[in-house]
Amino acid sequence: MISALPADVQRALTATAGRRFSHLFLVACGGSLSIMMAGKYFVDRHSGTFACDIYNADEFVCRDPRLLGPDTLVVLCSQTGTTNETVRAANYAKDRGAATIGMTLDLISPLAKAVDHAVAYQASYTTGKEIDSACSNYGVLYMLLAGLIDEREGAGITADLLMSLNYLQPSIERAHRTYADRFQAFAPRFGPCNTIYTLASGASYGAAYSYAICVLMEMQWYDSQAIHANEFFHGPFEVVDRDACFVVLLGLDETRSLSERARDFLFKYGSRENILVLDGAELDLSGMSEHIKPYLVPLVFFDTLWRFAYELAGLRGRPMLEGRRYMKKLTDY
Amino acid sequence: MISALPADVQRALTATAGRRFSHLFLVACGGSLSIMMAGKYFVDRHSGTFACDIYNADEFVCRDPRLLGPDTLVVLCSQTGTTNETVRAANYAKDRGAATIGMTLDLISPLAKAVDHAVAYQASYTTGKEIDSACSNYGVLYMLLAGLIDEREGAGITADLLMSLNYLQPSIERAHRTYADRFQAFAPRFGPCNTIYTLASGASYGAAYSYAICVLMEMQWYDSQAIHANEFFHGPFEVVDRDACFVVLLGLDETRSLSERARDFLFKYGSRENILVLDGAELDLSGMSEHIKPYLVPLVFFDTLWRFAYELAGLRGRPMLEGRRYMKKLTDY
Repeated sequence: MISALPADVQRALTATAGRRFSHLFLVACGGSLSIMMAGKYFVDRHSGTFACDIYNADEFVCRDPRLLGPDTLVVLCSQTGTTNETVRAANYAKDRGAATIGMTLDLISPLAKAVDHAVAYQASYTTGKEIDSACSNYGVLYMLLAGLIDEREGAGITADLLMSLNYLQPSIERAHRTYADRFQAFAPRFGPCNTIYTLASGASYGAAYSYAICVLMEMQWYDSQAIHANEFFHGPFEVVDRDACFVVLLGLDETRSLSERARDFLFKYGSRENILVLDGAELDLSGMSEHIKPYLVPLVFFDTLWRFAYELAGLRGRPMLEGRRYMKKLTDY
Repeated sequence: MISALPADVQRALTATAGRRFSHLFLVACGGSLSIMMAGKYFVDRHSGTFACDIYNADEFVCRDPRLLGPDTLVVLCSQTGTTNETVRAANYAKDRGAATIGMTLDLISPLAKAVDHAVAYQASYTTGKEIDSACSNYGVLYMLLAGLIDEREGAGITADLLMSLNYLQPSIERAHRTYADRFQAFAPRFGPCNTIYTLASGASYGAAYSYAICVLMEMQWYDSQAIHANEFFHGPFEVVDRDACFVVLLGLDETRSLSERARDFLFKYGSRENILVLDGAELDLSGMSEHIKPYLVPLVFFDTLWRFAYELAGLRGRPMLEGRRYMKKLTDY
């Protein structure tokens, strides 16, 4: 049972508690950037004292936002802690006087060494071992953000979050069973296609983004894009025909109606057999606080969608991690 | 010659001059949202007094950012002024006590009526008439933002901007001539493809976004996505092969090196004949201030890329605006 913040998260919060940050920068690349999108949603909803930006790490350094300075906090994330752009961003932020917190699997990595405060998380993806998703990048990011906000505003969300995180892994296990048949039914339809779009809004947008670029494109060479559920109606929906393949994430957050509207359009003008809908409302999230559920649903979606990717990989005859041709194979880019 | 801000822009600035905004929200949908991306880049680089967020209008209303309130300013944009989501966002922001400025072609439209201060811009796209791009959505947005920052910080960027805007339309005309042959060479290669990606960073990312979703997807039914030049290396680049078609926008802003790196990768692992590069360094931007050029380059790119889209439309036998099947044809979504 998780009943208190992990020691490294608590240390980072304690060390920065005296500082009244005007601005929080969430900085990373790729999959690690995608969790920051949900983090920003959480901050936007809860923080009355600091604003929040998310940037790709290289964009952040080159853009050099004028507000970056001693009264800002920069939270960075890199799975291995070796992502060059993110390490560079950490050093750059420190040079500008900002406080820095780095999230990584590896507490002796370059990112961990570059930041003021390193915080560990876990991943089954790289290590191959089973983890409790409460301790994943998403889980630890929410802990940090809830702690930062509570410290400044006494909102009491950390307790709610920690309580709810205890029910996350069982919810994910149940979701695997909920979706197993659906994934088996959709895999033969999506497997041979060239293009799969992912569609979401609000707290789930990052999961759709990561699934499109880090799973479908990176590991299965699909043409793909994450489409925001309302932006969909301002251009992208014109590609919809009976053959178009979409994964639709219906979250439980305040933007749910946006994705429902897009789903309804897709059901009408696409083919239902090509529209794979994952609906937070069909998940068994027993035990979680109603207030926290919307933020944890994207973790459930993303974890279960890995299973779907493995189904596709089997049909396409392309192994997942080993299927890359450039990443971690080339060194000259 | 433009030597002063348009009267309606000046009125909006004067009316809000006394207010010390802590936060600026840039809110719109689709193509109008894409210009806000460049606007945020401009604000991030220049503003030391207020932070800035961009949101799709429906996301903005549902997300309901906690910082939205009386000490915030919301700038909205809708070409026709009839975009439901954007009008709703204007009303919502006013209800929350924020000051609102609405940009639109039509000063008697619902958006113009909903906001505190309506500001007109021009477009050749909808009206069919030739305009001076200085008075386009991008141009007027920059005027507003420069004015807001100058008023609070006396940075003197408005004068530089206005001077430079006088040289924009001639630069665009020259760019049409620069790119005419290149577009003719690439059109037969891109025309029959199913997928075209657009790639950019910094101030040019919005132009890539708009071209992907509002032109290639919306009007020519291509599968498409705007890919951020560094995010490219964290997943999307795995789709690159000799057949992959990319439009690469190399801007002149601080993030230029990100797009150069992606271009180099594409030249090496794709085919040069499928990588259409538009480079700000090859444009004749005579007369513009060096400081302002990076912000005006995306307007040049986007305007000239329309020409390329018409080339593609001709080859694909699909007219541009009339080629839509849903937008402005259906009313029930």
